[in-house]
Amino acid sequence: MFYKDNSELKFCMKLKVFNETHAFGPGVVKILELVSETNSLSASYKAMDISSSKGWKIIKRAEEDLGFPLIQSSIGGKGGGYSTVTEEGKELLHRYNIFVKELDIEAERLFKKHFTQ
Amino acid sequence: MFYKDNSELKFCMKLKVFNETHAFGPGVVKILELVSETNSLSASYKAMDISSSKGWKIIKRAEEDLGFPLIQSSIGGKGGGYSTVTEEGKELLHRYNIFVKELDIEAERLFKKHFTQ
Repeated sequence: MFYKDNSELKFCMKLKVFNETHAFGPGVVKILELVSETNSLSASYKAMDISSSKGWKIIKRAEEDLGFPLIQSSIGGKGGGYSTVTEEGKELLHRYNIFVKELDIEAERLFKKHFTQ
Repeated sequence: MFYKDNSELKFCMKLKVFNETHAFGPGVVKILELVSETNSLSASYKAMDISSSKGWKIIKRAEEDLGFPLIQSSIGGKGGGYSTVTEEGKELLHRYNIFVKELDIEAERLFKKHFTQ
């Protein structure tokens, strides 16, 4: 390391995709992944330790910017409501995750190149 | 585009480097670049439309995390105070900017690969 012998510099990368506002990033990605697992918005918000109004705002903002729904919910029935990620949501999530994964490999390489010499 | 014919999806990448907290990113980079140009912290904060207490907090947090000073200030004298970026600050800024620039090229390539087919 160039600056301090006993420290270990790291990096953190945050990616968002959007039309007009930076609406689809780590927050909404986490919600979609948790909804895929739990089929429950409230369980997902709880796992993320955010209020349902905050969670709903994150989703709505992304849906409005993208122009399609990310979450599909059925209300009521036996056992209460049930939420799933829409097909378009799954497709976007899939592309986003590959994009992040591949870019992270390049980031590791370039960070090493510029910060460990 | 896979999801909406008349829209143009974009991406935004944010990088931070740090030891323990995500302290060195776009905010402090902007301050250092403005200080390099103006030699004035107050002019830099004004250009960024942030308060001097907020600006100072951003710098202090980064300096504490990195373990070296980023800004050197001389107080008073004819014409008032004068601030410069330290040699270590310049070095880190230089490495960070090349890192971001090179990674941005990879990000453009990978975004195109995953979001325009």
